[in-house]
Amino acid sequence: MMKALLLIAHGSRREQSNLEVVMLAEKLKQKCSDHYPIIHAGFLELALPLIPEALKKCVDDGATSIIVLPYFLNSGRHVIEDIPTIVNNTERDYPDVEIKIAAPIGASHLMIDLLISSANATE
Amino acid sequence: MMKALLLIAHGSRREQSNLEVVMLAEKLKQKCSDHYPIIHAGFLELALPLIPEALKKCVDDGATSIIVLPYFLNSGRHVIEDIPTIVNNTERDYPDVEIKIAAPIGASHLMIDLLISSANATE
Repeated sequence: MMKALLLIAHGSRREQSNLEVVMLAEKLKQKCSDHYPIIHAGFLELALPLIPEALKKCVDDGATSIIVLPYFLNSGRHVIEDIPTIVNNTERDYPDVEIKIAAPIGASHLMIDLLISSANATE
Repeated sequence: MMKALLLIAHGSRREQSNLEVVMLAEKLKQKCSDHYPIIHAGFLELALPLIPEALKKCVDDGATSIIVLPYFLNSGRHVIEDIPTIVNNTERDYPDVEIKIAAPIGASHLMIDLLISSANATE
């Protein structure tokens, strides 16, 4: 099995924000490429690659299992409806590839630790 | 010194998203009320309390030192301009209170660990 991570952000008209997402995917590569040999970033809208293209990049790189990581804070419409719909529609093109969608990062049990760490660093 | 944490999110027309922020502030209370006896949530727009009112709540509770935690992923205009401007304008009303603004959570060195943990939990 060849595992891939696909970090999906909303996408912004502000190029710097999109670049921050791409750089975060680069950091993920440095940290966990042993476990996830394929790592890409993609966007729901306003920036490229969009989700279907980003999934295709993972598959073209040889992924047989893809975890989509929604870089979203809240479980709003984008997370509950838009991303699953796009992923499901794209998934049909790759019947041999397993695609799972992680919870949005706001739901992580580590978010509290992250916030406390950020507060402590500010004191 | 009486320390306060003020979690600031963008605010949403979707009440559930705002509630998630309030619940996150509640979790912060459970986790670190020893170090930060005063913890509140507030919003940049679209939900109440807005930042000035939320800062007032901290001061009314006795805070002499407030750390504003921007619950934002990217260092966009809201984080770079809007929140500091509102905080600075409000700060003038409380000359005896020290107010600092933390980095947005997307800048945390723990974000990578959070993403990897979220991916692992999805496998």
